Amino acid sequence: MIKTDHISAANAQAETALRTDYDALGEQLDRRGIDIAAIKAQVSDYGVAIPSWGTGTGGTRFARFPGAGEPANIFDKMDDCGVIHQLTGATPKVSLHIPWDDAPAADLLAKAEETNLAFDAMNSNTFQDQPDQAHSYKYGSLSHTDKAVRQQAIEHNLYCIELGQKIGSEALTVWVGDGSNFPGQAHFIRQFDRYLDSAKEVYAAIPDDWRLLTEHKIFEPAFYSTVVQDWGTNYLIATELGDRAQCLVDLGHHAPNVNIEMIVARLIRFGKLGGFHFNDSKYGDDDLDTGSINPYQLFLVFNELVDAAGTLGFNPAHMLDQSHNVTDPIESLMSSAIEVQRAYAQALIVDRDALSGFQDGNDALMASETLKQAYRTDVEPILAMARFEKGSAINPVATYRASGYRAQVAETRPVSSGAGGGIV
Amino acid sequence: MIKTDHISAANAQAETALRTDYDALGEQLDRRGIDIAAIKAQVSDYGVAIPSWGTGTGGTRFARFPGAGEPANIFDKMDDCGVIHQLTGATPKVSLHIPWDDAPAADLLAKAEETNLAFDAMNSNTFQDQPDQAHSYKYGSLSHTDKAVRQQAIEHNLYCIELGQKIGSEALTVWVGDGSNFPGQAHFIRQFDRYLDSAKEVYAAIPDDWRLLTEHKIFEPAFYSTVVQDWGTNYLIATELGDRAQCLVDLGHHAPNVNIEMIVARLIRFGKLGGFHFNDSKYGDDDLDTGSINPYQLFLVFNELVDAAGTLGFNPAHMLDQSHNVTDPIESLMSSAIEVQRAYAQALIVDRDALSGFQDGNDALMASETLKQAYRTDVEPILAMARFEKGSAINPVATYRASGYRAQVAETRPVSSGAGGGIV
Amino acid sequence: MIKTDHISAANAQAETALRTDYDALGEQLDRRGIDIAAIKAQVSDYGVAIPSWGTGTGGTRFARFPGAGEPANIFDKMDDCGVIHQLTGATPKVSLHIPWDDAPAADLLAKAEETNLAFDAMNSNTFQDQPDQAHSYKYGSLSHTDKAVRQQAIEHNLYCIELGQKIGSEALTVWVGDGSNFPGQAHFIRQFDRYLDSAKEVYAAIPDDWRLLTEHKIFEPAFYSTVVQDWGTNYLIATELGDRAQCLVDLGHHAPNVNIEMIVARLIRFGKLGGFHFNDSKYGDDDLDTGSINPYQLFLVFNELVDAAGTLGFNPAHMLDQSHNVTDPIESLMSSAIEVQRAYAQALIVDRDALSGFQDGNDALMASETLKQAYRTDVEPILAMARFEKGSAINPVATYRASGYRAQVAETRPVSSGAGGGIV
Amino acid sequence: MIKTDHISAANAQAETALRTDYDALGEQLDRRGIDIAAIKAQVSDYGVAIPSWGTGTGGTRFARFPGAGEPANIFDKMDDCGVIHQLTGATPKVSLHIPWDDAPAADLLAKAEETNLAFDAMNSNTFQDQPDQAHSYKYGSLSHTDKAVRQQAIEHNLYCIELGQKIGSEALTVWVGDGSNFPGQAHFIRQFDRYLDSAKEVYAAIPDDWRLLTEHKIFEPAFYSTVVQDWGTNYLIATELGDRAQCLVDLGHHAPNVNIEMIVARLIRFGKLGGFHFNDSKYGDDDLDTGSINPYQLFLVFNELVDAAGTLGFNPAHMLDQSHNVTDPIESLMSSAIEVQRAYAQALIVDRDALSGFQDGNDALMASETLKQAYRTDVEPILAMARFEKGSAINPVATYRASGYRAQVAETRPVSSGAGGGIV
Repeated sequence: MIKTDHISAANAQAETALRTDYDALGEQLDRRGIDIAAIKAQVSDYGVAIPSWGTGTGGTRFARFPGAGEPANIFDKMDDCGVIHQLTGATPKVSLHIPWDDAPAADLLAKAEETNLAFDAMNSNTFQDQPDQAHSYKYGSLSHTDKAVRQQAIEHNLYCIELGQKIGSEALTVWVGDGSNFPGQAHFIRQFDRYLDSAKEVYAAIPDDWRLLTEHKIFEPAFYSTVVQDWGTNYLIATELGDRAQCLVDLGHHAPNVNIEMIVARLIRFGKLGGFHFNDSKYGDDDLDTGSINPYQLFLVFNELVDAAGTLGFNPAHMLDQSHNVTDPIESLMSSAIEVQRAYAQALIVDRDALSGFQDGNDALMASETLKQAYRTDVEPILAMARFEKGSAINPVATYRASGYRAQVAETRPVSSGAGGGIV
Repeated sequence: MIKTDHISAANAQAETALRTDYDALGEQLDRRGIDIAAIKAQVSDYGVAIPSWGTGTGGTRFARFPGAGEPANIFDKMDDCGVIHQLTGATPKVSLHIPWDDAPAADLLAKAEETNLAFDAMNSNTFQDQPDQAHSYKYGSLSHTDKAVRQQAIEHNLYCIELGQKIGSEALTVWVGDGSNFPGQAHFIRQFDRYLDSAKEVYAAIPDDWRLLTEHKIFEPAFYSTVVQDWGTNYLIATELGDRAQCLVDLGHHAPNVNIEMIVARLIRFGKLGGFHFNDSKYGDDDLDTGSINPYQLFLVFNELVDAAGTLGFNPAHMLDQSHNVTDPIESLMSSAIEVQRAYAQALIVDRDALSGFQDGNDALMASETLKQAYRTDVEPILAMARFEKGSAINPVATYRASGYRAQVAETRPVSSGAGGGIV
Repeated sequence: MIKTDHISAANAQAETALRTDYDALGEQLDRRGIDIAAIKAQVSDYGVAIPSWGTGTGGTRFARFPGAGEPANIFDKMDDCGVIHQLTGATPKVSLHIPWDDAPAADLLAKAEETNLAFDAMNSNTFQDQPDQAHSYKYGSLSHTDKAVRQQAIEHNLYCIELGQKIGSEALTVWVGDGSNFPGQAHFIRQFDRYLDSAKEVYAAIPDDWRLLTEHKIFEPAFYSTVVQDWGTNYLIATELGDRAQCLVDLGHHAPNVNIEMIVARLIRFGKLGGFHFNDSKYGDDDLDTGSINPYQLFLVFNELVDAAGTLGFNPAHMLDQSHNVTDPIESLMSSAIEVQRAYAQALIVDRDALSGFQDGNDALMASETLKQAYRTDVEPILAMARFEKGSAINPVATYRASGYRAQVAETRPVSSGAGGGIV
Repeated sequence: MIKTDHISAANAQAETALRTDYDALGEQLDRRGIDIAAIKAQVSDYGVAIPSWGTGTGGTRFARFPGAGEPANIFDKMDDCGVIHQLTGATPKVSLHIPWDDAPAADLLAKAEETNLAFDAMNSNTFQDQPDQAHSYKYGSLSHTDKAVRQQAIEHNLYCIELGQKIGSEALTVWVGDGSNFPGQAHFIRQFDRYLDSAKEVYAAIPDDWRLLTEHKIFEPAFYSTVVQDWGTNYLIATELGDRAQCLVDLGHHAPNVNIEMIVARLIRFGKLGGFHFNDSKYGDDDLDTGSINPYQLFLVFNELVDAAGTLGFNPAHMLDQSHNVTDPIESLMSSAIEVQRAYAQALIVDRDALSGFQDGNDALMASETLKQAYRTDVEPILAMARFEKGSAINPVATYRASGYRAQVAETRPVSSGAGGGIV
């Protein structure tokens, strides 16, 4: 963790300017009929989960270039997550990936208390082989042609639920790499039915107060077809499974040009929006920092979420899911959490009554302008004030850099090797 | 129609070579355990419908360049469709578009008898304004914010059903241009619910032995969002409506890179594949000639269809839907009907037992090779022999050209003007 | 034109709030070392040209839905452009399209003086047939296989230059629809060489102080290949022609996912960036309002332009090119001109020294953050103050609506018919 | 190597059927004015190079699932390449990747003689860090901001040339992973200029009878921009460097929907087509087996190559570049080499005089049909006969499987571990 004194000292430098900007924005919003304090309160209450694996430097099939002080295990990762939450006040939960983060529940809970964190959705891994496994996932996992392989994958998911229950998680996220690389390799219908049968066995073990979140993806690691290729298939799966099954939307898992905010609206309409993996992308599942490529799209997604808030039972999970290949992961995760908050704050100040009127009157220009006005409002003072008031940093990245945290952990953590990926 | 003598004379020239090639292929297929006569019989029984509008030269928003002898009305169009079926033996039905093809049922039936054709699905048009309409579809039709506009669109569909019943049609295809051009212009959920409500009123009028086919499209003429943007939404619509509602798949209506054959498999699996609009595309809804850009994809679609043949109630409608901007539409429609037959024939000769074994054994290379072997088989002699034996042309395009049909109709049909499209 | 009193009265209502917001922003920018007055001066000097055709309601191949008071000719269009410039102060020039806007030079000049406008680049049209033409462009224009058709297209371009010289234009923009719809239809190399030969004849007539701007486009109206498909081919053309030939970039003419701002940088680097057609798109050449879909991309383009400003001979043309299908074109053009200004203003306040340092130090996160900080600054007060100070409207759309201009011109302009497009 | 007796015995089983099919095809082609023996001779002379790394099982950033008997070093890889060439007669050269394949030249030459192979282009690697390097390529190589890193990358390329000269290679292929993951991370122009400066130093060392082949790629491993993003930039590089520099086209390195065969034509037209990395893809750089996804596209590429054959100095390099994640790499490489030959044979039998006439006459339908007729011809008997006559296998995959080669090498080669990729 960062010393509280360090944060306070940094904040003291920035406080005056922040108050000036906050007041000016408050006055402007007041003219638009918006109470800045109410927006700030909602932003302050908002949290987005951190994926444990996001704290390590990511890579591609070509290479991985780790930095100094890479976390070596889940306890290191939780230390990093603790710092992220300390400085942003926006990331109260961490999402574990099994088996990477497997550890005794008691140890995990102790670490959570130490780092002031709780546990978000559990993530199973049936896309990699592990030394202790009897069967390989080379040709699939939950949809494999061999019942024994499917059974191994099912049992791994059951284990994740079991561990998750001990540590206070309330959801299991299932993403599989199953698919095919050649036309003909897999029989689409039989493969899908095998997936569905396996998923039903996992679903049967989902506790009553849990959710099963299934995730679709158009390609990678399979390059001709994937079993859960899009939201349509994902919806069918969730519907076949039951009420506790919902769909998870990763912003980078869609075909080019697809209107993602509309998919969000469709899933909301049919009660199956389970949550998000936030990131950004330009080409494929690039896993870039949230809001770094197309921030307006992120706003439009939140526009749907804010619009749907209050709908009975509407409670999607929010998590970052990024690959930090060229930045310090802690910095990227802090910035990205703030970008998510920013989109949320902008969506909160949309004049929804005016928008609704323009929509009903087919006034396309003013409907667009209504969204744009909210979007172009610089809500940074709201976000910063929310952080400041809860003892987090006005300027998280600068405060983090000045703290020397990375250099400090680099002294004790082992050096990580930068192996090549799938390229041989 | 073309004179029978003309066709016979042309065929006489080509018969010897055809028999040679047919016999050689028959011998080769026999070695592979396939009875060429059985394949030929299935091909001979196969038909794909012609869209009446396909017989006129199409265009873009930039321009339309009509040729000589453009059909001026549905009766001209049916004359052209009659020629297409006469020469190919593959297009027994024509699909009408209302109001373009509106005419007294008795006249349509008489013309059908004259041209040896029947009527396929009816197509409604609520994407263009007509002089006699009270309301404009500028801001939508079935999903319009104004109930009066929706009602007008509903009633137009009811009229299409009514006319269709009189002429022996058994389906209504509904495609709408509804959507939005700006984020915010339309409220996604309310717009969708309005669509659904209107569609339910149309569905209520669908006769028991009819089907309602709804069509999805990712973009154009709306450029930010469309109400029925993809197969997922299309599936939800068909499910909400009922058993007689199914999804229509147009090969050019998907996002880039999307695996269309897999969508076909998903719709088959959930009982909602209603039919196809065949064409080809490289960029968007290019409406190019079927099989002209990616013939292997067409084969893979038919691979799914042949695989599913025999499934209870499986009976998708097959129709071409193309825009012929630079070719004689009759020639393109004949060639395209044959391309569809070709893909069907190739799919019929897939060794499905072997394929199934390779799939179960995760032998990806041999599974792919099994499909490729069928695909690379030159089945042209089968298609040509099927045509020959039913009195159609061995070489439809050459026979058509030599007939002088186009020059002949050009003498009596009025000159069509090539106006610009939406460009002003 | 709008009455000056009307504008003044509207501005009087908004002035106080504007001054408050402007001062608050000025103080914030001052803290960041930026002089708001200097930014305002640059914005005030900036202009983007209006395409004459943008003032009419656009359409698609499916339909066009005109509004009331559509301009019937170039003089109506210039009246509308005059209003746009009066209210925004941002659009001092209009770009003509021949033959749509053909008229005696003296009349055009007189109208320009009346409406306070000048003439930007001339646009030739060889993608539509005209009644008085001997040859059709169905199979191409500058690249047609027939020399006579190419000659007709060349001469049309020469005519555009001739007219343009009389009215003070300084550039000719050439976009052709030439391409092919089938593999094999055109021989790529021979077709390109014919284009190049024709373009050389046009180039030979380009006056010494003019520029020839060629425009690339990946597809539409040709759907398999286009002659000038991308910036690579466009660059080769400009290079083959000579120094006065440069490349024009339309934001909607690229393949999905392409990094357009990088193309801008490449063309700058090699001295061939001639100008822009600004608009926005989600799927293809959607011609949506600038900044309505991906405003960050627009900012990134301007980031390159501001970065290159001052480079010897760097002077790209800026023009809007949009199709207004569901909005009042005057409103869309005003909003879009302001969106262009907004991106320009945001790019002006990028801390370039800091950015350069982060780039040299491979500090990816802070480099990104430096751009984002400028982008998220709400520069609206700068734009509004620039308008206000030159007598334009603080709120152009509201002021326009209140003026009753559209209803007024609708009384005298003929009703426009909403024909279908290329669909038959 | 496989025992000659084994091949002969397998061929003996298949010879009769082959001769029957070959004769039938010969008769059909003869009717079309084509001499089958001449086509066979050209196919027999044709060769495509094997990338050494293709012999190992590939993977993704998620995982790699190696098979039994993975090659452990370049000598194992050359053994595998020797088998591929032995059975197909189509792959006389192997392309080395340094440092993966680094070895004493004498040893490489001895192994080449043993395996009956020669060496194709050398491939440098500046996208991965190596234990003995002073500098990391995390932020780039030839375009890195630090001169020392660029120098290291340059020297590595010089080493590759040096080694290549000793073993009879005649080209260096340079692909770099340089780019950026965030807008702003890299200054596009300065980064490009650094690349160009480095490339000039490499070019200066290219022997007179060598070529430098640069390769473009739209994304991966960089996900916002790449330094050599498309053929336009690639062309500019090759032009800046000089006559011995040419562009390499990898079929999977383009934006969605891009017309690759047209790019090939453009590069041919301007003398800069240096060669190919053949593979296939559906979504990105999927590196799937050549011809497995879109075989018609492969044919269209070869249609351009055959059309340009005979052009002075036209001699593009042909190499496979695939990632075999779910198949035995030897099988995939054999099948893919044959797919390349197939496309070549099909392109050879295009009736070019007829095509040219249809193109000049704007007969789009018959131009398309001319290509399709050649494409749908099943040329397998030609390919098989060419193999048979040179002592290779009529059925390479079946013969390979029956030989037991993989099981045999698995006994002596070490087990390969399936590490995860860039995912942490």
